[in-house]
Parts: sequence; structure tokens; C-alpha cells
Amino acid sequence: MMSKLQSFGFIGGDKRQLYCGRSMEEDGYSVSYCGFAKEQEGFRVHDSDLSSVIRQSDALILPVPCTKDGLTIHAPLAEKTLFLDELTEVFGRVPIFCGMTQLLPFTSEKLYDYSRQEGFAVANAVPTAEGAIQYAMQHDDGTINGSRCLVVGYGRIGRVLSAMLHGLGAEVTVSARKERDRAFIRAAGQKAIDSGALVGRYDLIFNTVPERLLSAQVLAGIAAGALIIDLASEPGGVDRDAAERLSIPVIHALSLPGKVAPKASGRIIKNAVYHIIREEGL
Amino acid sequence: MMSKLQSFGFIGGDKRQLYCGRSMEEDGYSVSYCGFAKEQEGFRVHDSDLSSVIRQSDALILPVPCTKDGLTIHAPLAEKTLFLDELTEVFGRVPIFCGMTQLLPFTSEKLYDYSRQEGFAVANAVPTAEGAIQYAMQHDDGTINGSRCLVVGYGRIGRVLSAMLHGLGAEVTVSARKERDRAFIRAAGQKAIDSGALVGRYDLIFNTVPERLLSAQVLAGIAAGALIIDLASEPGGVDRDAAERLSIPVIHALSLPGKVAPKASGRIIKNAVYHIIREEGL
Amino acid sequence: MMSKLQSFGFIGGDKRQLYCGRSMEEDGYSVSYCGFAKEQEGFRVHDSDLSSVIRQSDALILPVPCTKDGLTIHAPLAEKTLFLDELTEVFGRVPIFCGMTQLLPFTSEKLYDYSRQEGFAVANAVPTAEGAIQYAMQHDDGTINGSRCLVVGYGRIGRVLSAMLHGLGAEVTVSARKERDRAFIRAAGQKAIDSGALVGRYDLIFNTVPERLLSAQVLAGIAAGALIIDLASEPGGVDRDAAERLSIPVIHALSLPGKVAPKASGRIIKNAVYHIIREEGL
Amino acid sequence: MMSKLQSFGFIGGDKRQLYCGRSMEEDGYSVSYCGFAKEQEGFRVHDSDLSSVIRQSDALILPVPCTKDGLTIHAPLAEKTLFLDELTEVFGRVPIFCGMTQLLPFTSEKLYDYSRQEGFAVANAVPTAEGAIQYAMQHDDGTINGSRCLVVGYGRIGRVLSAMLHGLGAEVTVSARKERDRAFIRAAGQKAIDSGALVGRYDLIFNTVPERLLSAQVLAGIAAGALIIDLASEPGGVDRDAAERLSIPVIHALSLPGKVAPKASGRIIKNAVYHIIREEGL
Repeated sequence: MMSKLQSFGFIGGDKRQLYCGRSMEEDGYSVSYCGFAKEQEGFRVHDSDLSSVIRQSDALILPVPCTKDGLTIHAPLAEKTLFLDELTEVFGRVPIFCGMTQLLPFTSEKLYDYSRQEGFAVANAVPTAEGAIQYAMQHDDGTINGSRCLVVGYGRIGRVLSAMLHGLGAEVTVSARKERDRAFIRAAGQKAIDSGALVGRYDLIFNTVPERLLSAQVLAGIAAGALIIDLASEPGGVDRDAAERLSIPVIHALSLPGKVAPKASGRIIKNAVYHIIREEGL
Repeated sequence: MMSKLQSFGFIGGDKRQLYCGRSMEEDGYSVSYCGFAKEQEGFRVHDSDLSSVIRQSDALILPVPCTKDGLTIHAPLAEKTLFLDELTEVFGRVPIFCGMTQLLPFTSEKLYDYSRQEGFAVANAVPTAEGAIQYAMQHDDGTINGSRCLVVGYGRIGRVLSAMLHGLGAEVTVSARKERDRAFIRAAGQKAIDSGALVGRYDLIFNTVPERLLSAQVLAGIAAGALIIDLASEPGGVDRDAAERLSIPVIHALSLPGKVAPKASGRIIKNAVYHIIREEGL
Repeated sequence: MMSKLQSFGFIGGDKRQLYCGRSMEEDGYSVSYCGFAKEQEGFRVHDSDLSSVIRQSDALILPVPCTKDGLTIHAPLAEKTLFLDELTEVFGRVPIFCGMTQLLPFTSEKLYDYSRQEGFAVANAVPTAEGAIQYAMQHDDGTINGSRCLVVGYGRIGRVLSAMLHGLGAEVTVSARKERDRAFIRAAGQKAIDSGALVGRYDLIFNTVPERLLSAQVLAGIAAGALIIDLASEPGGVDRDAAERLSIPVIHALSLPGKVAPKASGRIIKNAVYHIIREEGL
Repeated sequence: MMSKLQSFGFIGGDKRQLYCGRSMEEDGYSVSYCGFAKEQEGFRVHDSDLSSVIRQSDALILPVPCTKDGLTIHAPLAEKTLFLDELTEVFGRVPIFCGMTQLLPFTSEKLYDYSRQEGFAVANAVPTAEGAIQYAMQHDDGTINGSRCLVVGYGRIGRVLSAMLHGLGAEVTVSARKERDRAFIRAAGQKAIDSGALVGRYDLIFNTVPERLLSAQVLAGIAAGALIIDLASEPGGVDRDAAERLSIPVIHALSLPGKVAPKASGRIIKNAVYHIIREEGL
């Protein structure tokens, strides 16, 4: 890829950024880091201060999410707090690649949200789906093969996850609201049901819908003896009190890509950044 | 299904309508036919005249497409021409289920287009994809298993077809314009390329895009020795002159569901009609 | 591949041998033909007489089967009969690669049976399974996707065929006598039943077992309305009289590789011949 | 299942036996336990002494393996040692179902080895393969989807594992010694190589062969940067010293069924016991 940008500064984030940086180094770019003082297994990076990184870099890369409080850069591996307004001087001057810019209290020219790059969310459905399978394997004493699995929802994650469960030899049922999606589900050799009428008996239930579809009543009918992996963002899609009363274990599994597959996730970030560079001619 | 409609009259169409009618009879409905005088293997239907069918029916079912000329009902199995305006008397009085109503010169209350029902097009992608595979098997002296297949386009048909080819053990590459689609393709364990930059060497090429993506230049690069199955509606997506010069055989395969799987297609029509009945409370 | 054999003479056989020969020419060998006077689409070969082919060739390749009557070479594309004893002069002098040598009335040094080469039969299961699927598609008005398929027997063909049907999105049940095989079937995400107790209702039944497992009684229970593809060698595994009484269509599909995929089959022959050359140091 | 045996005594073993017992209780049998004093999550069993269990039981079920030292019953959850010779009194009187009876210092009438039941080993390949995938997911920062996987060996485990990896969307290469197996591998849409000539570059390597195929030389060529999961029994199939020198992590994963999927494994034991009961008419 021909680009004017030859040096990148990573500011904040977790192991995903380290893998992203390493992969960009392997591609021939020069890379520096700020906010990675806590050592991570498999990495030995030189952690610089912010101004030094800014000085060395043609562009900056912030994590996803770039901030959680609108004040500081999300930097769980840093030893000291990094404030967003320390970036003020570079705004509009150097490209900043950032995830979930909607959380920023400002906007700026040359600010690019790689998490909105088309393909980013779908690509992340892969580590999310694998993470869900890993959690199910770890917390269940059965096998996925031969088990009755329900995937609630047929968005990005439901689509990738149900195909993987099918590929492992599970008996897969997927729920979707739209007849169009149910037609795709059936075409994929899986069983389709209406998300509004969850029925059946399952060994494993994976929820991907951020609505309380797994209500007390539904749980009583479909989930006795099942393990539930809830992938929907807080507060999730499961009536937890009811689940507890019914002794149905629920694992709320969030932010899986960074947890279970930082290497794959780092590559997804890199690809999204490269895509923006190409598209924007940076 | 509880419905006030208990008797259905099929007017025009091909074997799909016969299968649809038989399946509705098996569901307990009473069914009559007009426009099916030419006997079809496996069927023995009593072919009535139009007024008699109208008299006996709570609702009418026309084929997809319901007309080709805006004047007559599409009725390839009829022995005499059926004019659309013979239906005038029932307009607005009895429900008419119809495919591709955009071809009609009029509109009417109680006119329902089952071909626009969500799920109908996706469901038809299945017989289309299987038909494409059948044609490839018939016209190629190789096997799908182990062959290098390119599917151009990742809409409904491309998505279903590429999964089936993968399931048969082919080496599948799919082209798509959107990075989002390419991410789904890769997640499905297939190779993704940009529809705007078709590259590689293939044994079988399936086109689903109604644009001339398979131009002379592209053909020369990817298709020498390949068989092309073109599924895109006229004029298709292949530069036929170039293909002929390059001795690349092209099979233009249209309207596959009715040709290769009228039984499955009839059931899809039935499901769409039932869906409308439920939704509209007919 | 380094070999002393540089020229090959094809004597008898069908389109598979033509594809095999073409592929060997592409690999750099010199090739001549005897018994191919009837022109085949896509081929223009010079058909020589036997003595001329023998003179030009370091080795001979006979078809599979090499003979049907123990007297003449199986040569359906020849215009005159080729007698096996015309080969007497070369016995033991030049290597002869042959299929199904058990049908020959003699044996000889330097006679190699490529059809017994390990891997040959498994490789041929692929075109056989695809051929079975093609026939089912051609003769059935439904789709494989979503249909209930029964595969009787889990030998080479049953194993490859059931995986392909599964990959097309069918609901696959496979019968096997051995619990060991049934465990493999279940591991593959399919339903396993005992070949001795065929139960269920199916849309498509594929028989691979050369025993009358599909007796009148069994047919009555599982096959009403089904299409049967019988892949077992004569007399097949279906009680034909019973099937006729029950109006169950049976397609007896034999020698599929040569019929539906001569190109793939020709390559399989070539690979087997090459394998023998390597193993024997010819 | 009609059987004279109505009560079963479980003596020794781990959580698999608890799941097996629970499942048999659900089938209506009466069950007692000896050697399960250490409480296991999800289970509350009454742990009796041996003589009491023997008195109450029509048949006994010992674990797999039934002993490790030929002296005591393998009973990791027991609080006191159980000696094999305490069973002497029941020999030949009541059926004893046992795993790996070859480790016993005696034989006896009415002693049945369920681990030798055909199908048992194949059924256990499923939890083994899933366990291998779980370990790979836990120890690798990438995803299985899209990764280059090598499975060394195409026995029971290799066959099930490679299909699962393929189903998760990995790029799967399998090595096998026999051309016959390689033909099956290719038919399954995977890449086949010779176990004697391991080549390529991989992200994940799964060894199933109890021979040192992954020698120093081979490792240097195929495994730099890879994670190896070795499933072969001690001493495994990897040159560990070489792997360490090359900084290639090796996880030696043994006895996976009991560790990762005791519930599934318990059901496999139950099915094998039931199978013997049916076969032997007990």
C-alpha cells in the first residue's frame, strides 16, 4: 500500500493495539507506543510519553472505545492517566484513527472512526462468535457436537455463530423476527423460529439481541437445564432474576474480541485503518 | 391456520401452481383450476372455465409472473388465451394473490403480491442455486468437489449458492462490492475478492450480478477453460461475443425455480400466500 | 515426476481415457490412441491402429473395465473390435496399466491394475456421489436443500454422499450396520440408524448397499412418495416389483464417474497410474 | 430397553461416572455409588461403602480406566483406597462393566469391557476433538476461523477434529500416510499431505499420531509462530526440546473427554453399557 503515512503512534488501549502495532511493523511501518507500561505476555514495547509519540508519528491510533468517560483516553495498560485534551494540539493536523468516536466530547477534521468502517463490525463477529463457543465449552460439561443449540437473533453475530455451531455438528435453531432472515436460516440447513415465539428445549442458548426476549415465561419453557451465554450489551437479554430462580446459569459475555482473540482483533483494526487510508487517499 | 378463505381458484401458470394447489388440498382447502388443460406428468386436474372457477372460489391465485404482456394472464399450460380483463368483475370483491403485480396494467383493492412478501425472494434463491449447480453438473465433465468456483455477487443467490458449493467441497471464491459482504464471505471460510477487480483462475463461474462485470478483459484473465453459468436476468452479466471468441461456454440460466424444482417453488408460493392471509387477517 | 516411460498408448475405453490422455500430454508425455474412432465432443484425436500404438509406446493404458467378456478390449468408441490376444506380443515386455484386471483371462508380469490402487476407489466415490445428486436433481421436482434424505450404507460412497447432501442443506439420515460407523455419522452432525431397521419417512433415498435392504416391507414404511436412486451394482438393493406396486420411482444409476464426470475420472486414472509408476520405480 | 438388570452400583471413577449414573436414574434404573465422597459441583450423591453397593446392585460399573496400578480401583473422588480384590466375591456372579480391562490382573466371566465396545472410541473422539479446539481457543490469541490449521493423522480423532475445524472456517490441511485417507480428506474439501513429508506454514498444529513425526527438522519448517496441541499419548509426537529451542509452545492435552466434557463422556459410557446389555441379553 502506497501511503504518505509512514509512522504511527498508538495511544492507549489493550493487547489488541499491541498486536495491531506489531503487525504494522511487520508491514514496514515505524510504530511507537504511549500508555502500555504494564507489560503484556509476548510483548516487549518501549512505552514513550505522549508528546514524544506525537512528535514521531505521521498519524495516531486510539483504541476502541477511545474513551469511556469523555475525559480520558481508555488506556487500561497505562500507568498514568492520559487526558483527551492532551491531543488538542494535533487536531486537524495529523490523522487520528479512533474507535467509537461517538463517545468523544468533540469532533475534528482528520478524525477517522475505524469502528464504523463497513466490514469492521462483521469482522469482529468472528472473534465474538468464537469467544461465545469457547465460553460454552469451558462452562458446560457436554459437547457442542450433538447438542441442541438456540441462537436468539440473526444479526451479524447470530449469523456467524449459528454457522459455526452447525459446523461443529450441533443441532442448531435460530430465531429471527423477519421471515426474510428465517428463509436464509432454513437455506443454511438450520431450523428457524420466530424471535417473538421462542419454543423448544435446548442445551445451550446464545442470546445476541439487546432486548429482554428471554423473559421469565420464555425461560421456563425453553431453558430448564440449559446454559445461557448472553452476548447482548448491558443489561443483556435475559431476565436474570428468573434465571436464578429457575437455576439456569447465565454467562454475560461482553467485549469478547479483545478478551479471547486480541491478535485477530488487532488485525481487524489494522485492516480497517488501511481501508480508510486507501479510501481517503491519506 | 384459521381463515375465512376455504376455496381457492388457480388461474394460469405452470407446474408450480399445480404443486401449490395439491399442497393446499392436502392442507384441507378446496381447490379448482383454470388454464391447465395441457396435462402434466404426475397431475390429473380437472380444468374448468374461468367463470366456473371464480364462482367456486373464495380467493384466486395467479402465477408469477401473472402476465407478460399486460393483456393476458400468463398461462403456458392453457389451451386458450385468458384475458386479464375477464377478472374485472371480481376486483375488490375477492382476494387475488398474484406474483409480480407491477406488470399489471391496473391495481385493485384486495390484490396481494406474494412475490413481494419478505422471504419469498430468499426462499426462491434455494431452487435457483440448486438449479445452477444442476446445470453445472450436467454441462461440465468435471466434478464440483475440488473445483475452483467463482461466484460473482453476494446477494441472495450468491450467498446461498456459495454456501452450497462450499458444502460440496469446492474451493469457493466469492466477489462482492462491499467490504461488509466480503467480511461475511471470509467468516464463512470462503475467499473474498472485489467485484470490481475479478482475478484468479476458475473451473466454474457463476454470475448473479445483472451488470457486465464479466467483460472481455476480465474473461480473458479468469475464465479460459471455464464454464460460465449466468443467472442474471437479460441481457446477463457476460460479454457473450468475447466469451465466444475465447471459446468459453456460457449457459444463461433463467427462471430456474419453475424449471428445476416446481414442487419446492409451489410450496414457496403457498407459504407466501399463507403468510399474507395471516398478516392481513383474511 | 522422473520416469523412464515417456510415451503412452491408450487402447480402448471412453471419454475418461481421452481426458486422461489429454492431461498426460499437458504433463509433457507423448500419447497415442487406438479405439477412439467415434468422435467425442471437445476432442479431436488421431486414432491409430493397434500395432502402430504399440510401436510408439513405452507403456499401454487400458480402460476400466479393461474387458467385459474376457475376449475383447472394452472399446465403446472403437469402430472395430479389438481382441485381447492382440496384446500377447507385448506381455511382460512393456508395462500395461489396466482397470479391473480380475476380468482378464490371463495374468502377466508388468501388468498393473490401477483400479486396485489404494485411493482409486475413494477418489471415484466423489464423481459417483455427485452423479447421484445430479440424477436426484434432474428427476425430482423438489430441492435437496430442506429435503429428508436417507443414505443406505456408510462405505466410501455413503460417506462422501452424505457429507455432500448435508453440505447442500438436506436433513440427512444415514444407515449403517456398525455402531462404529454410526458414531462417525453422528459426529458429522447427521442422524444414524441401523441398516437392519430402516425407519422414518424420506423424500430422497440413496442406496449404496448391494443387498436387498429396501424390501417390500421396508419400502412401504419409509419410501411412499420418495424417489430412490440405487447406486448398488446389479441387481441393486431395491425390490423393484414392490417399488412399482407402491408407485415409488427407482433410478438405477451405475457407472456414474464415466457418465457424469469423465474429466474428473480421467484425472483419477492418471493419478493412479502415476502413483504406480512412482511406487514401482517404472 | 427390557433388561433383568434394574440396579447398578458405580464403584470409583470421576465426574463421568456421576453423569452416567444420573442419566441411568433418569432412565428409571436404581443407582448407588461407592468412591465418590469428594463432592462435585452439581452433584449430591450418597456415597456408600463397597459391600453395601454390592448388596444393592444387579450389576457393577467401574471407571475407564478401571485401575492404574493393577491393585486398586481408580477412584480419584474417593476418600479411602478401594482394592480390586474386594470385588473377588462377586466375580462371575454379577455382571461387571469396566473400562480398559487389559489393565486388570485377572479376568472373569461376566466381565464386560465397555471401552472396547465398537463405537466407544469413535464416540469419544468427539469430546477429544472439542477439547482440543477449546484448548487452542484458550491458549491462542487468534481465531480458529481463517487460521491455517494442520491436523497430523487421520484416525478417529483426526477425522472428527479436521471436520470441526473446517466447520469453524479454518483453512485445514490434514496429513495421512495412506493415499486412501488422503482421498477422503480431499473429498471433504480439505488439503491432504503425506504424514511422512509434513510441509507448509501453520498457525495451529494438532497432533494425533503417537510417533515423533514433529521432529526438530519438521518443526523448523512448519511451526515457527504456531501453537501445537499434542493429543498423542505419552511421550507424544513432538520433539519437545526442539520446540522449546524454537520457542514453539506445545500443549500436551491428554484424557480430554473426562476433563472437558464429563457429561457427554458419561452418556457415551452409558450407551456402551446399554449396547452390551442388549447384545449379551443381560
